[in-house]
Amino acid sequence: MNTVFGVTNEIDTERLQGIAAQLRIHSITATTAAGSGHPTSCLSSADLVAALFFGHMRYNPKDPKHYNNDRFILSKGHAAPLLYAAWAETGLFPASELTKLRRIDSDLEGHPIPRLPFADVATGSLGQGMSVGVGMALCARLDKLDYKTYVLLGDGEIAEGSVWEAASLAGIYKLNNLVVIVDVNRLGQSQETAFGHQMDVYEKRFSAFGWRTEVIDGHDMDEILEVLAADGLGEQPLVILARTYKGAGVSFLQDKDNWHGKPLNKEEAAKAIAELQPKAQSGVGVEIPSPNELSAPNNTAPAAYPPLNYKLGDLVATREAYGTALTRIGEVDPRVVAMDGDTKNSTFSEKFFKKFPDRFTECFIAEQNMVGVATGFGARGKVPFASTFATFFSRAFDQIRVAGISMANLKLVGSHVGVSIGEDGPSQMALEDLAMMRAVVGSTVLYPSDAVSAEKLLEVMAQNRGIYFLRTSRPKTPVIYNNDEQFPVGGAKVLRQNPGDKVTVVAAGVTLFEALKAADALKNDGIGITVIDAYSVKPLARDVIKAAAQKTNNLILTVEDHYPEGGLGDAVAGELSADGVQVHKLAVMELPRSGKPEELMARYGINADAIVRKVKSLS
Amino acid sequence: MNTVFGVTNEIDTERLQGIAAQLRIHSITATTAAGSGHPTSCLSSADLVAALFFGHMRYNPKDPKHYNNDRFILSKGHAAPLLYAAWAETGLFPASELTKLRRIDSDLEGHPIPRLPFADVATGSLGQGMSVGVGMALCARLDKLDYKTYVLLGDGEIAEGSVWEAASLAGIYKLNNLVVIVDVNRLGQSQETAFGHQMDVYEKRFSAFGWRTEVIDGHDMDEILEVLAADGLGEQPLVILARTYKGAGVSFLQDKDNWHGKPLNKEEAAKAIAELQPKAQSGVGVEIPSPNELSAPNNTAPAAYPPLNYKLGDLVATREAYGTALTRIGEVDPRVVAMDGDTKNSTFSEKFFKKFPDRFTECFIAEQNMVGVATGFGARGKVPFASTFATFFSRAFDQIRVAGISMANLKLVGSHVGVSIGEDGPSQMALEDLAMMRAVVGSTVLYPSDAVSAEKLLEVMAQNRGIYFLRTSRPKTPVIYNNDEQFPVGGAKVLRQNPGDKVTVVAAGVTLFEALKAADALKNDGIGITVIDAYSVKPLARDVIKAAAQKTNNLILTVEDHYPEGGLGDAVAGELSADGVQVHKLAVMELPRSGKPEELMARYGINADAIVRKVKSLS
Repeated sequence: MNTVFGVTNEIDTERLQGIAAQLRIHSITATTAAGSGHPTSCLSSADLVAALFFGHMRYNPKDPKHYNNDRFILSKGHAAPLLYAAWAETGLFPASELTKLRRIDSDLEGHPIPRLPFADVATGSLGQGMSVGVGMALCARLDKLDYKTYVLLGDGEIAEGSVWEAASLAGIYKLNNLVVIVDVNRLGQSQETAFGHQMDVYEKRFSAFGWRTEVIDGHDMDEILEVLAADGLGEQPLVILARTYKGAGVSFLQDKDNWHGKPLNKEEAAKAIAELQPKAQSGVGVEIPSPNELSAPNNTAPAAYPPLNYKLGDLVATREAYGTALTRIGEVDPRVVAMDGDTKNSTFSEKFFKKFPDRFTECFIAEQNMVGVATGFGARGKVPFASTFATFFSRAFDQIRVAGISMANLKLVGSHVGVSIGEDGPSQMALEDLAMMRAVVGSTVLYPSDAVSAEKLLEVMAQNRGIYFLRTSRPKTPVIYNNDEQFPVGGAKVLRQNPGDKVTVVAAGVTLFEALKAADALKNDGIGITVIDAYSVKPLARDVIKAAAQKTNNLILTVEDHYPEGGLGDAVAGELSADGVQVHKLAVMELPRSGKPEELMARYGINADAIVRKVKSLS
Repeated sequence: MNTVFGVTNEIDTERLQGIAAQLRIHSITATTAAGSGHPTSCLSSADLVAALFFGHMRYNPKDPKHYNNDRFILSKGHAAPLLYAAWAETGLFPASELTKLRRIDSDLEGHPIPRLPFADVATGSLGQGMSVGVGMALCARLDKLDYKTYVLLGDGEIAEGSVWEAASLAGIYKLNNLVVIVDVNRLGQSQETAFGHQMDVYEKRFSAFGWRTEVIDGHDMDEILEVLAADGLGEQPLVILARTYKGAGVSFLQDKDNWHGKPLNKEEAAKAIAELQPKAQSGVGVEIPSPNELSAPNNTAPAAYPPLNYKLGDLVATREAYGTALTRIGEVDPRVVAMDGDTKNSTFSEKFFKKFPDRFTECFIAEQNMVGVATGFGARGKVPFASTFATFFSRAFDQIRVAGISMANLKLVGSHVGVSIGEDGPSQMALEDLAMMRAVVGSTVLYPSDAVSAEKLLEVMAQNRGIYFLRTSRPKTPVIYNNDEQFPVGGAKVLRQNPGDKVTVVAAGVTLFEALKAADALKNDGIGITVIDAYSVKPLARDVIKAAAQKTNNLILTVEDHYPEGGLGDAVAGELSADGVQVHKLAVMELPRSGKPEELMARYGINADAIVRKVKSLS
């Protein structure tokens, strides 16, 4: 019985070793049945996972989402069969399900995703789990809960920079409720990792990043339990560096090359299981300590938001409206938290930070981790708003992509879009963000033109679960909507429309005002155009736009401060081309340069003059 | 005169201090003239840059691209005016140009880009310069040249994980020809950095990542020169951690908050210049040591490539054809180098690695750095091919975006695309890579269906400068083209076409074979379809596709193993909708799951049956 450092649950070391053997058997059986998968990557982690799930963590196995359960994130998602085996052994579902691994009729996929109640986030793109863990650990602190967050990493994924972004922030915020375990099994996919079993290299790195480090034999159950029992000591996050062997526990697999991502054939599996079976014990019946009964966090949505107070014609940048809205919404919605990447004085998230410093996380210049942190907050019931220059979300595209697979509740707000930012030049201009965010599965992409629509769309974002992207602009634009106007997702506003209009111009953000100017200029020439504010880029208001187009001889002109690929023009063409609508596009067709906003919009052909010229060429 | 450690050029410390003052004056004058910019971020680095450019580096100032010039990368690109000032003081262009900073008629943009002959790459998205420097340092070693690569970072950008990816690889490969200087000026954009002037934090981190570290006063010219004179000692890369002050040299700016990214007004500028002027000296006339005369690298393109040797019907995955082609091309093209992120046995870049180990860089699981390393090789005349699972290039989207601004020579090859990878599940499936890569300015996006087209397109990639993306597939597909078929960029192949065809089906990769199967099935029902292989997704063969569509009543059906946003369907609709072509799309419309490739292609409606159904509904 393990009693070191007041460990919470009482269980034989031998029983845990038996459970580890059973998890190994499940991992082999499942991958052999599937005919694919990563059994040897499961085997190196089996003792660690057995110790965590059956000898250390506090959680209610019948309620994986309990607000005060310890969290476990399998960052090395390719060891999914091991995770599934552990939960099966807790009794959550029958172990017989495990042999359905990777089948189209099973939720036990090749890598875990939140279709499973115990997977808070999708993993499988390496190096992302730690950022999510940082978000959860910060959330526990905010909610005054005592659950801990455990993240299991492989050693190969330590090469990902996102790991060091997360490590740095955890060190800065002294997250002593976060425990990272690194399964240092020495072998990567295509060769040995850079550092093999040089445990001191990992130790120095984590130590330099502000962590308490413990190096252990990852197959010695007593050592594992001992170091886990002492987690949370001190003021630093803890990393347990576990020296392990890939394929551990099976003589012909252990520490052997060329076994990455390969299932055993039936004979090999039988041989391996014959080695493991004598030790194997079930986890079912092990008493798992319940989470402490603390007050559940208040994660209830408000009934209504305080009203807006703009006057038509007020000049307000949509990025500033974002800061105002976030603060206004945050006052009545305790779920709202925010984070930024050292741009808060530009994105205006600073307004929220000043009012609610406890609910704001400065993530410094590390966008990958920021998105992971936000995803972690979202997975714990918060409504996280992460902001930076829109183009710097491209730094975190993989994290956003995986958030899509996680079906996460994640709100991204990107400022400084397009050539209309002016003199800073192309490195700071988001010109591909619409393409990027539209391509995220399940995403909603919003692009307001004035302060009222920006604020109202932010309400929509706070109210609705899912991945939302709000594209805000740097220049000040006039308020054109009344304070009580509604902006449903999938809607659009027809701002100008008269019988005999020649073309329907679809615009958003700064180009909307160019379209309105063009409408005035064309009117003087006796040419009418319909002008639509496509504030909802995805989903697009296809019916509104189609109906307008049908009244203008099926002619549409899109105008966007974005490259022509994957943005507003492609969205409209992709949706409506099948209906026989003809979509012409104005967009930034080449690499832009520094200059004044109005000079750049003229030079790259997305201003009122360009619209006038194009409309005249079409009509 | 500085003689410590055999420094190469002879110059007074006082003169260098004077040049630093002059660079400060230029930085202030230029940003005040522009009315925007980051003067205080220039001032903190001025002594370091003066020392490098006029007291240490070996280079030909009249030929910034000389093959053996020391390289200087301004990773903190917002200090652009300082870089411009330094080159002006070398005499490359008149200092009077500096006041055109950020103007639309000047190449002196807000952040440096390679329109300028001395900017090897664009910077401005922080944390990217070091990876490029690692690539250059590796290239110098490959080319047996003795130039050194200097990278100047800000302290804020150290939070970016890409910095630690680069630091780790430089440590692993012991790049003692790489020198990183960190301008630790303490102040970020919106607040103090996490570590302020705690130089020991930075020292421990770099040391743990395998670097020799030197901490200096970044405003003490003697200290700067001394530590530079000792660079390249030992077997490790060197990081110089320079303690500096933002706004240094001007009493009312130095170490003051709220001066980030703000120009001085005219009065403030005059006051600052009055402080600096008495010390200021020009750099013009300083003798800069020439690079050593070593053999120039052989970076000449070959006249021809060895022939292919496939038989029609051979079953070969395009990812495997990539490995074969790279090796075949590499045999005759010495410029070709390759790198991978520990997936070389899956992407088949391993074939090249085995044949040319010296020309291959294992980058481990760190895709951001891999893309930066490739960009660095490309900037030094090589033709770099970087490969990983296509979806993991999303990890490096910002680096790829900036490579677009750099007008880089960069070849990306992404494998394992779409649901056709099967059981590994959505985290490993590239379903948004076409959207991402199409949106990169100046990019070319290629998607072969068989081994011949894959190999021929790789020849095109090797021959032509620019950013190219090759999308390869996991499943084996039959060879359908003859070995001498040509595949020009912007082309397409019409594989089936008969009078009376009802619909033009545009496909690529695995869906092409589904379209061919569908054509056979529909033929039995008396329905003809035109089938086009759109191997060039960007630029698209708009004329070929349009001509085919016009023969099928302007009806097009696109089929792609990709989400519907920003991929092949949007590309075709975006290009051809204006011509009255009606584009219908089949694509993966929801988050997919694990399963067998054929099951998934059926379930998500991109197989032959789905095409048959859709064509029937249209005709």
